[in-house]
Amino acid sequence: MDAIEYIGLVASSLATLAFLPQVVKTWRSRSANDFSLATLLMLEAGTSLWIFYGALRDAPAIWLGNGITFMLAGFILSVKMKTVLLSTGSPTGRSKPSVR
Amino acid sequence: MDAIEYIGLVASSLATLAFLPQVVKTWRSRSANDFSLATLLMLEAGTSLWIFYGALRDAPAIWLGNGITFMLAGFILSVKMKTVLLSTGSPTGRSKPSVR
Repeated sequence: MDAIEYIGLVASSLATLAFLPQVVKTWRSRSANDFSLATLLMLEAGTSLWIFYGALRDAPAIWLGNGITFMLAGFILSVKMKTVLLSTGSPTGRSKPSVR
Repeated sequence: MDAIEYIGLVASSLATLAFLPQVVKTWRSRSANDFSLATLLMLEAGTSLWIFYGALRDAPAIWLGNGITFMLAGFILSVKMKTVLLSTGSPTGRSKPSVR
C-alpha cells in the first residue's frame, strides 16, 4: 500500500462513517420519506461495482469502504421500502409499530 | 485507461447518476428533514478527498464521479442548511417561500 492509498483510506473512512449518523437518525425516526428510492437502489448497485473494482485493483480503501457503505445504505433502503410497501405515498405513515 | 477502469466508470456513473433523482425529489419537495446534517457534511469532505485521490491516481472514474457527486450532494446540503437555519427543528418548515 503506497502513500496515495492512505488519502483514499481517509476519504473512504469519511464517506463510510458519514452513513453512521444517517443510520442512527433513520433508526430513531423510522422515516426515509425524503430519500429517493431510485437513488438508494442505484447507490446499492454502484457500491457493489466499486467493491468489484476495488478488489481487482487490490485497493482496500475502495472495496472495504464501499462494503460497509453497501450495508449501511441497505438499512436506509429497507426503511424506505417498508414505508413504500406499508403506506404508498403517505408522508405521515402509520401509527402501527413495525414488526421488528 | 485499462479494462478495470471501465468497471470503475460504470460504478462511478451509477453512484453519480444516483444523486440525480434525489436532487429532483429534493428540488420539488424542498424538504431534506430526513437527511442527517453530519452525514451530508462528511460526504462532502469525503468526496473532496476522493477527487484528490483520483487525480493523484490518474483515475477519471474516481475524480470525475466524485466531482459531480460533490455538487449534487452540495445542493441537498444547501436545502438541509436552509431548513436548519430557517426553522430549527420544525419538521413542517415555513410557508414563506425561500429567497432563491
